[in-house]
Order: sequence, then C-alpha cells, then structure tokens
Amino acid sequence: MHQSIKVFITGGTFDKEYNELNGSLFFKETHLHEMLKLGRSRLDLSIETLMMKDSLDFDAADRQLIANACNDISEERILITHGTDTMTVTASYLSQKCTNKTIVLTGAMVPYKFGSSDGLFNLGSALAFVQILKPGIYIAMNGKIFEANKVRKNTDKGEFESIP
Amino acid sequence: MHQSIKVFITGGTFDKEYNELNGSLFFKETHLHEMLKLGRSRLDLSIETLMMKDSLDFDAADRQLIANACNDISEERILITHGTDTMTVTASYLSQKCTNKTIVLTGAMVPYKFGSSDGLFNLGSALAFVQILKPGIYIAMNGKIFEANKVRKNTDKGEFESIP
Amino acid sequence: MHQSIKVFITGGTFDKEYNELNGSLFFKETHLHEMLKLGRSRLDLSIETLMMKDSLDFDAADRQLIANACNDISEERILITHGTDTMTVTASYLSQKCTNKTIVLTGAMVPYKFGSSDGLFNLGSALAFVQILKPGIYIAMNGKIFEANKVRKNTDKGEFESIP
Amino acid sequence: MHQSIKVFITGGTFDKEYNELNGSLFFKETHLHEMLKLGRSRLDLSIETLMMKDSLDFDAADRQLIANACNDISEERILITHGTDTMTVTASYLSQKCTNKTIVLTGAMVPYKFGSSDGLFNLGSALAFVQILKPGIYIAMNGKIFEANKVRKNTDKGEFESIP
Repeated sequence: MHQSIKVFITGGTFDKEYNELNGSLFFKETHLHEMLKLGRSRLDLSIETLMMKDSLDFDAADRQLIANACNDISEERILITHGTDTMTVTASYLSQKCTNKTIVLTGAMVPYKFGSSDGLFNLGSALAFVQILKPGIYIAMNGKIFEANKVRKNTDKGEFESIP
Repeated sequence: MHQSIKVFITGGTFDKEYNELNGSLFFKETHLHEMLKLGRSRLDLSIETLMMKDSLDFDAADRQLIANACNDISEERILITHGTDTMTVTASYLSQKCTNKTIVLTGAMVPYKFGSSDGLFNLGSALAFVQILKPGIYIAMNGKIFEANKVRKNTDKGEFESIP
Repeated sequence: MHQSIKVFITGGTFDKEYNELNGSLFFKETHLHEMLKLGRSRLDLSIETLMMKDSLDFDAADRQLIANACNDISEERILITHGTDTMTVTASYLSQKCTNKTIVLTGAMVPYKFGSSDGLFNLGSALAFVQILKPGIYIAMNGKIFEANKVRKNTDKGEFESIP
Repeated sequence: MHQSIKVFITGGTFDKEYNELNGSLFFKETHLHEMLKLGRSRLDLSIETLMMKDSLDFDAADRQLIANACNDISEERILITHGTDTMTVTASYLSQKCTNKTIVLTGAMVPYKFGSSDGLFNLGSALAFVQILKPGIYIAMNGKIFEANKVRKNTDKGEFESIP
C-alpha cells in the first residue's frame, strides 16, 4: 500500500508568508518539507514546485501546465497543494485532462506559518486519501473528501461542501 | 462517503500536558476538540473519552474496556487515540475481539501542546483512513497505514514500520 | 518599584490578524491580555484601547488623542502599543505634549498571532523599561531603549537605530 | 545606554526539551540564540553556557562556579538564565560574592519549546532590567523585578513574590 507518491506544489495560502518589512503576504519557498518533518512522515514522496501563485491568479496556461505535469509522470498517485479560491476549477479541469490517476488537491485557509493553520491537518488527510482512493480527481479539505465537479467552496463559511 | 465516525480517547502522549508547578507531564483533558477546530474539520464525529492513561500503564482490563466500547456502539467506523508505546498490542487485541468494523488507532510522538507535535498531521491522516478503509484494525502513524499484527514501533527511530 | 502602569493600545502590526475568508490582514481585538497571561505577568496594569489602526493611517487628531489620554490620567508610567511605521513620529509628538511622565512605546514587526512574532519579547522589554526609567518619551524595540527624537526605523533592515 | 552584556546559561526549565523516544524532559542545547533571533534583539550580547542543569540539582560548587564566572569577566552587566526552583538561593549567594555588578537572573515556568512558555517575555524583561538597574543582584520574573534576599518563589501559585 506504500507506493511512490508525487507531490506538486502550486502555491496558495498554504505557503504564504508575512513580509515584516512591508506588512504584505508573499511567497518565498514551500513549507511542505518542514510540515512533513513535523508530521514525522515516512512516506515515499517526490516533491516538485510547479509554481508559487495565488490561485486567483491562475489562468488557462497554469492549469494546462498542471495537467501536463500530472500526465507526464509515471506516478499514479498525485497530491497537489493549491490555493482554495479556485481549487474546484482546477479539479474540474483535471477531471477532463487526467484519467486513470488518483489526484488529490488540498490547501489551507490560513498560512502554515501563522500558527492557527489548518495546513498540517489537511496535509495528513490528503496524503492518506491519495494512498487509497481509486483513480479520480478529488479535493481533501475540512477532513472530508470530495469528488471533482461535486464540490464548491462556500466563501461565506470558509469551508468546502458537496453539491448535488 | 461522509458517515458518522466514533472517536474514542484513551490518553497517550497526544494529550499530555506540562505541569508548570512541578515540571511533570500529566493528563488534564483531551485536546481533540481544539485540534479538530484548528483543522476546520466538518466531519460528523461523536467523541468520547474512555480513559486518560499512558499506554505503558494499560492492562488487560483497559483493553477489554476499549474492545467492548467498540462493539457496543452502532458506528462502524471508529478512531482511537492511543499512546504509541503499546498501540500495536491494543491493535492486535482488537483484531481478535472486534470484527466487521473499521478501527484506526493513532497517536503522537510529541504532545500536541508542545509545538513540535506530529499530532495534527496524524489526526488528519487517521480521520481520512477511517472513512475509506474496509473493515479491519489499523494503525495510522508517520503518514502510513498499517494493518494490526503486521506492524511494530521501532523504538530506536521513534517510528512505526511494517513487519513481514 | 511596583507602581500602577497604564497601557494604551493603538493597534499596529502587534494586533493584526489574518482573515481566512478573504486573505487580508485586519484588526479584531487586542492580544495584549493573552500575551500578559502567557508571560505570567503579575504587574498591576490598567489596559485601555484608544484605537485599532495601522500607524501609517494615523493623523494629527489620532496623535492628539493619544497625548490627551496620557495627560488625562493619574498614572505616571505609561506603555503604548503602536505600529512601527510611524512610532518615532508619535514619540516626537508626545515629547512636546507630555512631560513629567515615563512613556514607552513598543510594537512588533510580525503580528503576535503569526508564530514568528517579536511581540512577546518586546512587551516584556517595554514593561521592564517603563517601570524604572525616569520621566521621558521612549521607544522599546529590538531589546533596546531609545529616547524620542534620537531614533529612526531603518526600513531596509526592519529595525530601530539611534540617530546622532 | 547600549553596553556589552554578558549572558550566562545555567539550564533550568527555560531550556528543557521533550525526548520523543522515551517521553522524558532533558537538556540538549540552549534556545537562547533562537529566542533572541525571534525577538529581533540587536543588543550586544556575549553568551556562554556554564552548565545545563535543573536548578534543584545545583550544589555549592555550581553556585561558586557561577559567582566566579561573574567576577572573572570585565562586563559589569550580566544576565543569568536559571531554573526557578532555586533561583532565589543562587541570587542570595551571588549577593554575598559579587559586588559592583548588575546581575539579573531569569527563567521560565514552562520550557520555551512548549508553546505556552513565559520564556520570551521573561527574556525581554530581564534584558531590559539588566541594562538600566544600578549594581545589585536581581530576579526578573512575572514582569517584575525583585532584589535578592527580598523575594521567594510561591510554589503553590507558581509565581515570584516580594518578602518583607
């Protein structure tokens, strides 16, 4: 059950940091390695940063790049860290472009570095789901698993929910 | 896929706290609710504290109590938080006493309150596994899932590993 | 040496929080009480929030309000939490308006809630200085104490330094 | 006002860590450098570890070593990190052996690494006091400053208080 898993980093709140010189939020490097160390993960992961962007800034080319990256590798189980704002859009896109692979998207409502982040919980959850779900495109948030095209982000509540 | 899940608390490093008056480690109350809030969990969980003990202090009666608790409820998916030192012993015991339920044990190497804890990662992982795995007794640690009787704690490395 | 100390909250990075619904930084309530509890402070403090603003947004009326607040109370030792961007401006202003009181301004480069904050260190430092310095207007940052009109914020380095 | 300050590390709760392999508390290395970095301290400090011990284990030789260390250096302002249990004993001892220097002892009720620590607050406080107070032996805890021989640790409340 312990296959090799590919992890693609795309940015999102997960990896935002606070720039103390000007008070803005920005991307530096991914915190994924630090988080996996904290979680004492012993999974066989291959990690690659595709981009470091706010998902509101994603365009068609970004999504195509992600889909190509998923299709171009031999791994059949893929975790993608992604901003929550357009996570469902990317999931839908991947559901058209990537078949026969188990792809789980996850992210965070609060940056990992800010203490009150859900990032470590989501990461643990997503890495578990990606190991055992059958091929498909999924979103792992709020402890739950959602299938692509059957989920929306409720922006008032700040949580993901199923749609009929 | 979003069934009701029972969570049994039994203590373990997970829930240990630091007594600042005498410098010892002790149990007060579980941090599970706080951790679920941090993780923005929206799972339908029913949480119950069975005991608050170091798993090195578990005896046959404790394990019987846990097995009975698992058998006495209607939920078919159960998460148990447990000290890591004898987690495999309890898993083996439950594999004899509890059938037809999906039971996942998890814990932490470092108390949740101590900053460097793997607890939140393990909790996310265990809650994901318990939703999807078929009936059986499992241990979720280090991002991995192990079947009862096929796992040991490597006390030198502080991690869980498969045994042949 | 344990006199009553007045603490005026004015906002600043110190008290900023992350709004997980829209990803912006904002003010809710001061974290000063939480910080004093963490520090096990047993000082006799009287805490009052004057405003909750980014110090870049302070105008003459804000500074006059702060000066009046300092002059209108009986306490002779006053701590002011303040954004770092215009902390030296307010200190200069107070040095003209408030005499015969020991007033220490402090703040933080990173919000208290963001884990990597200097806030608790600065608070401990500022509360110590305000107890023992003779009347005057001071800034407590980077572990140091500066007199008003003899300090600037080096915005490249993100630290305060003496000016000749 | 920004003189060179000597910092002597002697151990204490401040620097205790959690051994995740056996669940005990132990000393590895001091966290003082990490704490000063977090506090963005720009003080001119010279840091030296004298010992790494629980202050309950201090004997006469340990205290003599500390006193000698204080007397043997040219710096006139000294901060000592120390376990809280016998901090007042060491302060009394130093008040007999070390004159003409400003020596401030501080510590923590909870280890720095445990999240809920008062350590960073106490460190900021102690470093401020040591810069300004006239020669003497002091204890900086709970935001307050106490003179040696006029302070006790209230072990029921876990705080320091003046004695008549």
